Amino acid sequence: MGASGEAAGEKAGGRADTADTARLEAFSDGVFAVAITLLALDLHVPAPDMLPHGPHGGLVPVLLGQWPVYLAYGLSFLTILIMWINHHNLFRLIRRTDHLFLLLNGLLLLSVTTVPFATSLLATYLREPDKRVAQVVYSAVSLALATAFNRMWAYASHDRRLLGPDADERMVRGVTQAYRFGPLIYSVTVVLALLSAEASLALCILLALFFALPRRVRRGGGP
Amino acid sequence: MGASGEAAGEKAGGRADTADTARLEAFSDGVFAVAITLLALDLHVPAPDMLPHGPHGGLVPVLLGQWPVYLAYGLSFLTILIMWINHHNLFRLIRRTDHLFLLLNGLLLLSVTTVPFATSLLATYLREPDKRVAQVVYSAVSLALATAFNRMWAYASHDRRLLGPDADERMVRGVTQAYRFGPLIYSVTVVLALLSAEASLALCILLALFFALPRRVRRGGGP
Amino acid sequence: MGASGEAAGEKAGGRADTADTARLEAFSDGVFAVAITLLALDLHVPAPDMLPHGPHGGLVPVLLGQWPVYLAYGLSFLTILIMWINHHNLFRLIRRTDHLFLLLNGLLLLSVTTVPFATSLLATYLREPDKRVAQVVYSAVSLALATAFNRMWAYASHDRRLLGPDADERMVRGVTQAYRFGPLIYSVTVVLALLSAEASLALCILLALFFALPRRVRRGGGP
Amino acid sequence: MGASGEAAGEKAGGRADTADTARLEAFSDGVFAVAITLLALDLHVPAPDMLPHGPHGGLVPVLLGQWPVYLAYGLSFLTILIMWINHHNLFRLIRRTDHLFLLLNGLLLLSVTTVPFATSLLATYLREPDKRVAQVVYSAVSLALATAFNRMWAYASHDRRLLGPDADERMVRGVTQAYRFGPLIYSVTVVLALLSAEASLALCILLALFFALPRRVRRGGGP
Repeated sequence: MGASGEAAGEKAGGRADTADTARLEAFSDGVFAVAITLLALDLHVPAPDMLPHGPHGGLVPVLLGQWPVYLAYGLSFLTILIMWINHHNLFRLIRRTDHLFLLLNGLLLLSVTTVPFATSLLATYLREPDKRVAQVVYSAVSLALATAFNRMWAYASHDRRLLGPDADERMVRGVTQAYRFGPLIYSVTVVLALLSAEASLALCILLALFFALPRRVRRGGGP
Repeated sequence: MGASGEAAGEKAGGRADTADTARLEAFSDGVFAVAITLLALDLHVPAPDMLPHGPHGGLVPVLLGQWPVYLAYGLSFLTILIMWINHHNLFRLIRRTDHLFLLLNGLLLLSVTTVPFATSLLATYLREPDKRVAQVVYSAVSLALATAFNRMWAYASHDRRLLGPDADERMVRGVTQAYRFGPLIYSVTVVLALLSAEASLALCILLALFFALPRRVRRGGGP
Repeated sequence: MGASGEAAGEKAGGRADTADTARLEAFSDGVFAVAITLLALDLHVPAPDMLPHGPHGGLVPVLLGQWPVYLAYGLSFLTILIMWINHHNLFRLIRRTDHLFLLLNGLLLLSVTTVPFATSLLATYLREPDKRVAQVVYSAVSLALATAFNRMWAYASHDRRLLGPDADERMVRGVTQAYRFGPLIYSVTVVLALLSAEASLALCILLALFFALPRRVRRGGGP
Repeated sequence: MGASGEAAGEKAGGRADTADTARLEAFSDGVFAVAITLLALDLHVPAPDMLPHGPHGGLVPVLLGQWPVYLAYGLSFLTILIMWINHHNLFRLIRRTDHLFLLLNGLLLLSVTTVPFATSLLATYLREPDKRVAQVVYSAVSLALATAFNRMWAYASHDRRLLGPDADERMVRGVTQAYRFGPLIYSVTVVLALLSAEASLALCILLALFFALPRRVRRGGGP
């Protein structure tokens, strides 16, 4: 092993060339795609010989009884989808990369790959005494995602370090504003999970739905 | 977290730039590829010490006895392949994206990622008393796929919202026609599954084979 | 659902445009990449409490005793890698796609996704009485790969149907020759497996090593 | 099967065309992305009915007790990330491929796909008597990664065989230097693992952190 991280960067005084982001995006797309599809591995098929007997037996009540799995699946799918949309939007403005930015993006991907574990933990413990522990982990992963995004953007946009020359200043400020409070808000969901798993989960769902809305709508404008 | 979904869109009065679809396609390709490959995880290797003994024992009858797994695997592979071909064909006409379209595409990918679960459920219960429940779920996932496609195309083609300027009007109408009855047809397979799992499955297989045919052939033209 | 497979094809008299192969290649790359990485799921970590005790106990003999897993893993990795290299080389000559070609490519990908199952089956049964059954399945999957490739190329190169105008005739004939005997050779490995699993496996290994050689070397030229 | 590896290469006296590296990079990105995401499959959700009871029972101590899993996960994630960054940097200089180079890259990918197994083995045995065996395997996989990279670069850069005409000679020498001692250093971690699993693991962690640093910093320059 041995990183040659700044090989190209050294060429032109710390600048990396444009085509860089193409491969960063391709690799990140791969991780997002695998992680979002692996979520479905948590949808378990009940073994036929384990089904309860009797008038209320059979497959239907067992499938319906798995609702925490579906809930956690839906929430995590939406979360990773929004992260991908955000990532995709970021790279309309970011045109260059450097070694530290690749590491920050790696931190984001690390958080993304832990979402299936946190989802499975939450689905398993949502009706158990330890549900608050599971929700703390789930909220902490969401906080990690929000923080990694916040740091990536802060690094890339500082003095327009990695932005394209055509990146509109108003859009740049808009993105900065959109990511500013993410870490704070998700810190609240972590603390809230210590008190009530349900309240923290409900807040996570509301936040995901809110962030799925188009920005215009969120700011009170028309669709 | 915090979506900047319309960052670029705001730039030019609600329009997003052309390169958008490239990354949407790459991410979707990733999800399609992972989902279609994960189907194979349902092909189980029987444990050697679990094989039946005697003149009709051994590996062969056990492998042959797994035919519902192979049937479900083949059908789901073909289904996801057709969905990918459709997706691929859509993006010959669609040249732009916006935030809502990314969400609709996300809905399609959500359906795609649940195919392995529905497939495994069907393969497990095809010879069990609860086979109709499994077939309802399987048909419902197919219905979700057809509906998501229908909605994506309706949104993109409405007033040629996201189409390229060179998209041929005759082709656009052809696609509209091809997707029009999908949701209705797959609703029939769901209802039919309540009555007979076998009949609904047979219809799903026929539909998949039909949709795999080139369009000319389906409309009664020559090959 | 509803395929619009020839939407673009109809535009210009049966021709699909060049950019088509880009997405076909991306989707195929995804399937190849997932399948080749899933092979590693067959490398099992032995449970610590299941290790044998005594002077010849411990982890080392258990790991070494898994040699059929490593052998099958190495062979299948090389096989999928060669298939990918072949696929990659084909698309230096093929510049267009059509609906039937997408289906033929789908057949190839179907074969690729079953490689992990066949590999696991072989690794599990290589030291069991049913080893010939496992080897028949493994050889049959190799035969399916060779046949799918053969058919893809025959379809694409017939009257230069899908080739680029710059595809060198000598190269086209070279590829035709290289794929001509694949199905026949792998039929031999299937038949041979009925007689001796070891002989068929040895032939599969020799063939994979042979096909991994550069073509010049295989034809007796210098390196 | 049948490789046509040099089809294009033969065209122009052993040279393959530029677009080659695009697909090599896409396939490799796929393998890196799947492998780095599969690492997370080792994060197990403890079954609720297996949790210990009593004042020190519950989910928290069980999750905390899994620290070897998190440690191995973090280290392997960083390792694969650095390998990807290296691969990405290499292909700023490499512009062509040939058959042998595709095989060398395949050897690298083979090593990458075994990282999840080695990680799981290490996490399982880090507190068991056989921890040195597990660490030998883990260090050996790291050695294989370093060696594969070293060989890929040696082959590509020999007489600038596969480099672009614009590859800066100073950068080429820089990369050569960066990869020169990798195999030697990781040989040390293998030997050290025979004596002490902890010492070898600590060295692996230090090396990963060191290689994650920007090259300027590593050589003693400013950030």
